[in-house]
Amino acid sequence: MSEATVSRVLNGVGPVKEETRRRVMEAAKQLNYVPNALAQRFARQKSGNLGVILPLLPKVNVFSTYYFSEILSGIGHTAKHSGYDLLMLFREPGEPREYANLFRTQKVDACIILGAQNIPTDYDALEELQLEGHPFCLINQRFDGKPYNTVDADHRMGSFDAVTHLMQQGCQRIWFLNGPPVFSNSLDRLEGYRQALEAAGMTFDPDRVLAGNYSRKSGYAHAEAFAELIRTGQADAIIAANDRMAIGLLQGLKEKGVRAGADYALVGCDDSDGARLTDPPLTSIAVPFYEVGSEAASRLLGTLAETEPPVPFTVKLPVRLVARASSEV
Amino acid sequence: MSEATVSRVLNGVGPVKEETRRRVMEAAKQLNYVPNALAQRFARQKSGNLGVILPLLPKVNVFSTYYFSEILSGIGHTAKHSGYDLLMLFREPGEPREYANLFRTQKVDACIILGAQNIPTDYDALEELQLEGHPFCLINQRFDGKPYNTVDADHRMGSFDAVTHLMQQGCQRIWFLNGPPVFSNSLDRLEGYRQALEAAGMTFDPDRVLAGNYSRKSGYAHAEAFAELIRTGQADAIIAANDRMAIGLLQGLKEKGVRAGADYALVGCDDSDGARLTDPPLTSIAVPFYEVGSEAASRLLGTLAETEPPVPFTVKLPVRLVARASSEV
Repeated sequence: MSEATVSRVLNGVGPVKEETRRRVMEAAKQLNYVPNALAQRFARQKSGNLGVILPLLPKVNVFSTYYFSEILSGIGHTAKHSGYDLLMLFREPGEPREYANLFRTQKVDACIILGAQNIPTDYDALEELQLEGHPFCLINQRFDGKPYNTVDADHRMGSFDAVTHLMQQGCQRIWFLNGPPVFSNSLDRLEGYRQALEAAGMTFDPDRVLAGNYSRKSGYAHAEAFAELIRTGQADAIIAANDRMAIGLLQGLKEKGVRAGADYALVGCDDSDGARLTDPPLTSIAVPFYEVGSEAASRLLGTLAETEPPVPFTVKLPVRLVARASSEV
Repeated sequence: MSEATVSRVLNGVGPVKEETRRRVMEAAKQLNYVPNALAQRFARQKSGNLGVILPLLPKVNVFSTYYFSEILSGIGHTAKHSGYDLLMLFREPGEPREYANLFRTQKVDACIILGAQNIPTDYDALEELQLEGHPFCLINQRFDGKPYNTVDADHRMGSFDAVTHLMQQGCQRIWFLNGPPVFSNSLDRLEGYRQALEAAGMTFDPDRVLAGNYSRKSGYAHAEAFAELIRTGQADAIIAANDRMAIGLLQGLKEKGVRAGADYALVGCDDSDGARLTDPPLTSIAVPFYEVGSEAASRLLGTLAETEPPVPFTVKLPVRLVARASSEV
C-alpha cells in the first residue's frame, strides 16, 4: 500500500477503494490512532513548519538586533498568514551543517537560511539541499553561478548612491570601511563604491578600503588612524558597510575631537534605530529588512504549492539613501 | 492495546511481549511506517518543541528590537542545549488566545509567553492552560495570586534605585513617565518610585506620574508640557519606564533647547543599545533580558523531566543602574 493511499484515507480526502480504506483504518486502530496535529502531519508527511536557520545570537554577533528583529518579523508575519509555523533552528559556529536532515526527518517543509557564508561547510550543505530537491531560500547571501533561491537588497546600488551623495557634498577623498568578504553583501557594497568612483572619472584605490567585521568595536578601532588621515588631508569622507561600524567610528573620532558632519562626512548602511540617535544623526542606506523576510517566506512557500518543478527565484529589493547631518561638510 | 505499548514497540524501549511487538509492527507495516522524526514524536506523543508565544511584530510594537532579540536569544540558546526546537507562535491583536490547543494538538511540549497582559482574554487563556496542567511560563508579567510560572526582572528595585540616584544628584522634583498598567512591569516600576520617595521622607504625588505607551513617540509627546514644568521649576528630573520613551522625551526637549544632564536629569529603563548613542548618553536601568529568557527556558524545560507535580516557580532577576551623562545636573 502506498504512502499516498494511507495519507488519503487518514485525511479523508481523495478517491480510495472501500476495502483499502477498511484495511488502513484497521491498522490505524491497532496503533491506537488519535487524529491530532502530529498524527495528521505524519500521515500527510508534512510538518507544517517553515524552518529558519540562523546563527545562535550570543552577546556579540554579525547580526544587529535591528536586522534580526525586522527580518524575523517579516518572515513570521507571512508564514502565519500562509498557515505555517516558524521553527527556529539555531546554528552554532563549529556545528556541522546538517540542513538536509531537517527535511529527511520532516522537521520542516521548507527553510530560510540567514547568515550563510561563502565557506566550504556552508556551500556543501546548500549543495546537498539543492541536489536532494529540498525547498530553501537564502537571505542576504548569494553564491555566484548557483541557482539557489535568494532574496537580497541591492547593496551595490546603496554604495553607489552613497558615493554619489558624498561627491555632491563636495567630498573628494572618500574611503570605504567594509565587512568580511565571506558575505556577498560586502563584495556587492564594495563593487558599488568602485563603480560610482569610476563613473565619476575618479580612480578606485584599494588602499582606501579598510577592513572591519560589522561590529561597533571594529569601527571604533579605525578611529585613531582615520583621524590622522583626516588631519593630513588624505580623507574627507567614509562609507561604513553597516551602521554599527559607522557608529563606532563616529564615537571614536568624536573622542579625538574630530566631528562627523563637520570635519568629515560619514555614511552608514542599514538605517537602523541607532542612526537616528547619534550626535550628529547618521546618514545611512535604508534597507527594507522586513520586506526581505516577508518576500523570502512568500516566494518560498509559494513554490510548495506548484506542481511543476519551480523555477529558482532571485529577488533584489531596492535600497534608499537617508541623508542626515553626519554627511554634511 | 495501550498507547504506551505502541510507543514502547515503535521506539524499541521497555518490556513488550513478543506477540504484542509482532502485532504492532505488522500494523505499522500496513501504514507504511517510516521511522522519521515526526513518526517518533507521534509515537512518543511529544513534539520536541518549546513554543514561544509572542505578539506579531509589526512596524510599531510594545517590544523594542533590543528586548525581543535578547530574550529570544536567551530562550533559543537554552532550548537548543536542552534538545528542543523553538516554535514561534505569533499572536495577532484581535485573535482568540487558543493556547491550550497548542498542547492538545501536540504542537508544543511547553510554552513561554511574552507580552501577556492583565486583560480578560489573556487571563482566561492562561487559566485554561493551568487547569489542564500544561507546562508554561510567563516572561515579564505576573498575575497576582496566581501560581503561574514566571520569570521577571526586579523592576520595582530598578525604579527605587533610579529615584535614589537622582536624589543623590540633588534632584528634588522627580517625575515618572510610565507605560500602560495592563503590564505588571508598569505597576512594579511605579511602586518602586513611590517607595523610594517615601523612604526619603518625601511625598508621592500622583500628579507627577505621566502616561505613555512605551513608544518613542509617546515620550516625545510629553516634551512640550514637560519643558514648561522644568522652566517653571516644577520638575528637575524624570524617570521613563523604558529607554524608548526616555529617548523620545530627550529628543523632544532638546528641540526646545532643554538639555538632559544640564537643565534636567533623565533616567530610562532597559539599558538598550540606544542608551549609549544618545547625546548625552542615557542613564538607564540595565535589565538582564538574555538571562530572563535563558532562565525561563531552563526552569520550564526542567519541570518536564520531573515525575512529581512540579512546584510553580517565580524568578526575579536583579537589575542595575548604569549612570551616564543624562542624569547629571
